[in-house]
Amino acid sequence: MAYTVAVLGATGLVGSHLIQLLESRQFPVKRLKPLASQRSLGNSILFQGQPIPVEEATPEAFEGVDLVLASAGGSISARLVPEAIKRGAVVVDNTSEFRMHPQVPLVVAGVNNADLDWHQGIVANPNCSTAQLMPVLKALHSAVGLKRVIISTYQSVSGAGKEGLEELREGLTVDMNNSLRHAHELETLSDQYHSPQVFQRPIAFNLIPHIDVFSEADDDTYGYTREELKLIRETRKILDLPELPITATAVRVPVLVGHSESVTVDLESPLSPEQAAQVLRNTPDVVVASSLTDYHTPRETAGTDPVYVSRIRRDTSNLQTGLNLWVVADNLRIGAALNAVRLAELLHERGKLAPVTASALVTV
Amino acid sequence: MAYTVAVLGATGLVGSHLIQLLESRQFPVKRLKPLASQRSLGNSILFQGQPIPVEEATPEAFEGVDLVLASAGGSISARLVPEAIKRGAVVVDNTSEFRMHPQVPLVVAGVNNADLDWHQGIVANPNCSTAQLMPVLKALHSAVGLKRVIISTYQSVSGAGKEGLEELREGLTVDMNNSLRHAHELETLSDQYHSPQVFQRPIAFNLIPHIDVFSEADDDTYGYTREELKLIRETRKILDLPELPITATAVRVPVLVGHSESVTVDLESPLSPEQAAQVLRNTPDVVVASSLTDYHTPRETAGTDPVYVSRIRRDTSNLQTGLNLWVVADNLRIGAALNAVRLAELLHERGKLAPVTASALVTV
Repeated sequence: MAYTVAVLGATGLVGSHLIQLLESRQFPVKRLKPLASQRSLGNSILFQGQPIPVEEATPEAFEGVDLVLASAGGSISARLVPEAIKRGAVVVDNTSEFRMHPQVPLVVAGVNNADLDWHQGIVANPNCSTAQLMPVLKALHSAVGLKRVIISTYQSVSGAGKEGLEELREGLTVDMNNSLRHAHELETLSDQYHSPQVFQRPIAFNLIPHIDVFSEADDDTYGYTREELKLIRETRKILDLPELPITATAVRVPVLVGHSESVTVDLESPLSPEQAAQVLRNTPDVVVASSLTDYHTPRETAGTDPVYVSRIRRDTSNLQTGLNLWVVADNLRIGAALNAVRLAELLHERGKLAPVTASALVTV
Repeated sequence: MAYTVAVLGATGLVGSHLIQLLESRQFPVKRLKPLASQRSLGNSILFQGQPIPVEEATPEAFEGVDLVLASAGGSISARLVPEAIKRGAVVVDNTSEFRMHPQVPLVVAGVNNADLDWHQGIVANPNCSTAQLMPVLKALHSAVGLKRVIISTYQSVSGAGKEGLEELREGLTVDMNNSLRHAHELETLSDQYHSPQVFQRPIAFNLIPHIDVFSEADDDTYGYTREELKLIRETRKILDLPELPITATAVRVPVLVGHSESVTVDLESPLSPEQAAQVLRNTPDVVVASSLTDYHTPRETAGTDPVYVSRIRRDTSNLQTGLNLWVVADNLRIGAALNAVRLAELLHERGKLAPVTASALVTV
């Protein structure tokens, strides 16, 4: 059994990772269809040693496609994913478009695989900052129960795609040329030569506590960004803990690849740092630092698959049942492309890549 | 009344800020003595338009000095501060050396001024990440009581002095030259050309959850860094809340100047985000963002005096009595030099710059 696989957003940062992973993990691809906007026509994608021309992402492009890996943005998924399902494809969607839909399973491979079985044509891949935390929180919840989770993120610019990487590079070049020649001028970085497009402020030498748009809902989420609400709501859905007390502050940092998270958990019953480390060492996809004084950084772990957990220690504000952790992962892998390909593998193994007839989701 | 003022560590990053602030805030200086290590002899410091030669920091250099502003590192303060007191000086010490000593007041101007009155020759200036948070936590505590505080920091390289700034600049230059020419090479930053001296890992395009040394105490603080323990213990001392449940994760980020903190507070009784904003707007030295969707970044606030608070919102993990806040300040100002000079001003106003005879601290 091999499949015709379309990659929607094939020329983007996550798209190119998707194609590399389909090849390196030997997913049974009969035919690859790299789809992108008209702008990318004329380009080719190298797959299994062959250049494959990029095709335009139109509804008709999904004719004969078995599996779609979609990573071209929410509005494009909203428009094209129903078209793909209508034509018999199963879609692993990497955008936020369908994640919270009650008829769409939101899955992290190894965490809630069984949810794949009730899909109606779409399986959603969570946001990068959610995905990396799920193996960790799931393991702790299974061990002793989660009572409360407080997260502060340190998210790299690659979360905003190639354009994010480029804007950081350009911003740094401007600053280095203008102001960095003398150490004593460092305090007076001028914003004059910066015109940020991807981020809301210059990201060079800066932090921006604003990812995605602000919630304007007239409720308790007022003032949260959508990135923070994704982390909160997606976690509750994936762990099937709809009432889990959880909060998040999401911050963009001038790092290229790799998201980091400072996490405080209140547990239902005590777990020592050593016991927590042991629980996490027994968790697939998780690498635990060798000692309480060892740790991981995004720079050294970028380009690798696991979720890295370190600095597991007692929470001095809740000595009985609290722990602090530092969680780092490559946001382009477990946070995006790797999880999508693993979901495709699991769908294949579970016999769930067959067309869904009369999916309720076609009219979403 | 004017004073002979010695600045210990006059050629460092904080030292030069101290001297600028003594001048710009018109502190009554009769004579300035810039003190530094032998290495800096031959240099001059410009003060009130006059070049003043740097003198070597020896015990005898404190003869005739009324006030010492010390910012040359803990071991130098340990050796020289008692010598200065012995000779009749009052010392505002910016290092961690004496902060937790029960006979040394630890003071943030405007937060616990009355503690200045029981000094015995030394007043300690808190760590930068502690200082900026104190006006905020004090105001919330006075309003409704603090029950628990959880902090994740984003600390700039200038917290490690000029050498920290230089190491980031050099690291970025190496990476930009080697790997950044093509966006698709960004994932493979090589550490080969980096040899970090100030930080434990390359800080360019990276985060390091390790500031100061790890605690090896065989107790609940095992695995914390000293930076985190400073934040915890100094907060408890300054707010006079010795049992306050508080925890911290301290992370170095590739920002030049300005420390940021993601703070979650549990309060004794409910306070809406709007009420909290109002409380903080009425707090001296604090600037609150104009709306719940406005915010501050370190880049834009570096070089200014206030503490900036934004993103004040309900904590979705504790809707009744929890708040999240984003707190940014210039670590070289309120976090170091500005607070030190303000403490000197307050000591002057309160008549507390007289020599302390027979100080118990001389034999510390």
